[in-house]
Amino acid sequence: MAGASFIFFFLGLFLLLQTLEASQCSIEGLPLVRNISELPQDNYGREGLSHITVAGSVLHGMKEVEVWLQTFSPGSRTPIHRHSCEEVFVVLKGNGTVYLSTNSHWKHPGKPQEYNIFSNSTFHIPFNDVHQVWNTNEHEDLQMIVIVSRPPVKVFIYEDWFMPHIAAKLKFPYYWDEQCMQFTAPEKDEL
Amino acid sequence: MAGASFIFFFLGLFLLLQTLEASQCSIEGLPLVRNISELPQDNYGREGLSHITVAGSVLHGMKEVEVWLQTFSPGSRTPIHRHSCEEVFVVLKGNGTVYLSTNSHWKHPGKPQEYNIFSNSTFHIPFNDVHQVWNTNEHEDLQMIVIVSRPPVKVFIYEDWFMPHIAAKLKFPYYWDEQCMQFTAPEKDEL
Repeated sequence: MAGASFIFFFLGLFLLLQTLEASQCSIEGLPLVRNISELPQDNYGREGLSHITVAGSVLHGMKEVEVWLQTFSPGSRTPIHRHSCEEVFVVLKGNGTVYLSTNSHWKHPGKPQEYNIFSNSTFHIPFNDVHQVWNTNEHEDLQMIVIVSRPPVKVFIYEDWFMPHIAAKLKFPYYWDEQCMQFTAPEKDEL
Repeated sequence: MAGASFIFFFLGLFLLLQTLEASQCSIEGLPLVRNISELPQDNYGREGLSHITVAGSVLHGMKEVEVWLQTFSPGSRTPIHRHSCEEVFVVLKGNGTVYLSTNSHWKHPGKPQEYNIFSNSTFHIPFNDVHQVWNTNEHEDLQMIVIVSRPPVKVFIYEDWFMPHIAAKLKFPYYWDEQCMQFTAPEKDEL
């Protein structure tokens, strides 16, 4: 009898966790106005990152735009990457450096150009330009609103600036969409 | 001779103004990183509004998303309107009310639902839902980052919530795009 209770307890726990996960991933019953401070934030295994999906394809049913709030601790950075969507950044706090290569017609990105970014600045990354955002300030967090088109984002990651474009590795679904995403392969896309 | 100088002076002034206007509307030579404080802001004839195009279709060559910084003084508001694009708001300062009607299948929007919005909140407007954002705080500005898809925006404006959908008036190009926009009619769109 004790063994049966034990099995039912774990079965119940499993079903509860499944329900909780499903409700986190359901767009049914979401309030129209959401307090950003109460939205889930995580580093998704990327050191120094805090990512919040403010309005997302997977979490909120967005079809054409997605909005994130990202905070990078001193020294932390995005991977070197590209994606076939538009991306706009609005810097809310801190400063840093954006590295950008516009050589998508070359074999590899090559040495990128560097641009300073700062509180109350904005910049956007053209389709498929390889880029990296880096909090180069030693003392202060870098916080940005990030906007992408064509969600959910499909990212090609480079190990360095001289890795051939064709060797860049597709990461899809991206970390913050993994838990709720049902797809296992990207839809047809240009790159 | 004095008359001729006078004519040349005004001709020169005219050409200078034309060049200045053209350069304001040219995406050539735009810096990648822009200080939002230095971007043009205007009320575009709408009382109590400050609008800045942070990243725009007409001004910056965006094709899929557009980002604005809008500030509404106490009591000021958007028109009652709809558009066939997605729209996300991130409230930076202040508070107010968003009015939303999801009755696009009715003859007219009808009495809208009301939602409180506040600093650090977010909300999004589904395609073609009629809505209005109002700074209902008597003392404080309401400042928001506004993101739209499918730029440049094409807005249908209602005089009140009981105006039939088919009587809503198309405003295109919208005020902030008028000066630089060459089109006179919208491209094909659903509504």
